[in-house]
Amino acid sequence: MPRVRLTLAFDGAAYHGWQRQVSGHTVQNHLEAALARLFPSKPETTGSSRTDAGVHARGMVVHFDVDPVDLRMAETQLALAINALLPADIRVQHATLTEATFHARFDALGKQYRYHIWNAPTMNPLRRTDAWHVPKPLDLAAMRAAAVKLIGRHDFRAFTSNRGDLLEDPVRTLRRLCIRRAGPLHTFVIEGDGFLYKMCRGIVGTLVLIGQGEMKPGQIDALLASGDRSEAGPNAPAHGLVLWKVFYPDGKGEN
Amino acid sequence: MPRVRLTLAFDGAAYHGWQRQVSGHTVQNHLEAALARLFPSKPETTGSSRTDAGVHARGMVVHFDVDPVDLRMAETQLALAINALLPADIRVQHATLTEATFHARFDALGKQYRYHIWNAPTMNPLRRTDAWHVPKPLDLAAMRAAAVKLIGRHDFRAFTSNRGDLLEDPVRTLRRLCIRRAGPLHTFVIEGDGFLYKMCRGIVGTLVLIGQGEMKPGQIDALLASGDRSEAGPNAPAHGLVLWKVFYPDGKGEN
Repeated sequence: MPRVRLTLAFDGAAYHGWQRQVSGHTVQNHLEAALARLFPSKPETTGSSRTDAGVHARGMVVHFDVDPVDLRMAETQLALAINALLPADIRVQHATLTEATFHARFDALGKQYRYHIWNAPTMNPLRRTDAWHVPKPLDLAAMRAAAVKLIGRHDFRAFTSNRGDLLEDPVRTLRRLCIRRAGPLHTFVIEGDGFLYKMCRGIVGTLVLIGQGEMKPGQIDALLASGDRSEAGPNAPAHGLVLWKVFYPDGKGEN
Repeated sequence: MPRVRLTLAFDGAAYHGWQRQVSGHTVQNHLEAALARLFPSKPETTGSSRTDAGVHARGMVVHFDVDPVDLRMAETQLALAINALLPADIRVQHATLTEATFHARFDALGKQYRYHIWNAPTMNPLRRTDAWHVPKPLDLAAMRAAAVKLIGRHDFRAFTSNRGDLLEDPVRTLRRLCIRRAGPLHTFVIEGDGFLYKMCRGIVGTLVLIGQGEMKPGQIDALLASGDRSEAGPNAPAHGLVLWKVFYPDGKGEN
């Protein structure tokens, strides 16, 4: 069966995350409803990531299979046809036919997330849906000193919200963690081979405490060593986070 | 009476523009309702500009007078107090006490608008409320060649939507018109001593026709000479436009 690969962007504000739910208010539910109208075989989709409620995406990758008899359009028309059936806050950026062995989740080599903070006494109303408002001034040098300590291969359990027995290996490699500043807008670029549950938000929440002087950059070492979630900062809110892109061996996956 | 000067930012999507209307669905109506709750004298406000329905602002400037007996808070608390009574899509960025002679409209020396276009086959859903989606590729060099011709002192009546007898002098000085590109995002920075009704949107709509090859940069000269609105491009939609800042003799007015 032909396999289709999509790059998906969405504004997560209105959705209970990516993953299909009986309630129906998820991005996957809406995507599959659109596909069911195009393809009588009602394809089931597989996404690269399970983004949480409120989290956005610029480059989520998704695959699904289509019955060849249902594929009555050119590859170049796929994105247009699916977008015509999606709500305006979800948009297919690219759609291509791919190898039958391509797997959006298992083939992913890594991901890049971005987190936006608006750091000024009052919020910019034009960024209120995709940036976290932090009124207190942030010490960028302190946050950067802490960020450098997080780069590399570490046990990140102090930054995840996975409770109880950890079913997965908590060791991940953070390849990149930089903080860009343009006026009040701070953009955290966070790239790694994989992420634990709510790990990005735990990292940003901790860096913000450091930026506000409530923790010291040096405490990162102790957190990585202890794995004690209660010693790290609270999770930064979901609406500041964007799944920016997913990396694959073929080098595709740009948004 | 003490005069207060505000810098206001708003997401214009939900409003019928700035100016007070009986309907009540304007930014000025909401601001005055908030002020009436703080100040029993119910101040009337004067804005630097009358933004249209759907247009946004980062640095609209507003003044109003307060009865001294009503001003029971420190200057530094003003913005916080007003923001607590405003909807989340309107935010006072700065509030200061100013000279009794300051006038938000008459003292303005000029304004800067910005217009955002997302130029890619499919829209980025995270920019759908503040950028115009232009799917067809834009020729940036052609648009820039045309933009240069618009800079300076000209009769801009070919770019305004003011119908019938022009009551105002149609000559304006455009100080700056540059187009920045960052991937699919094009930002038009448009600065001048004043703007005719919908003039920014007429300029952007015309530059987009030029960017799509439907008009030539050289046609700008004929448009400026003829003043014929029907020969220029259609108005770009309101939701891509932001009143970025207003310039005053004191150099304030940053957003």
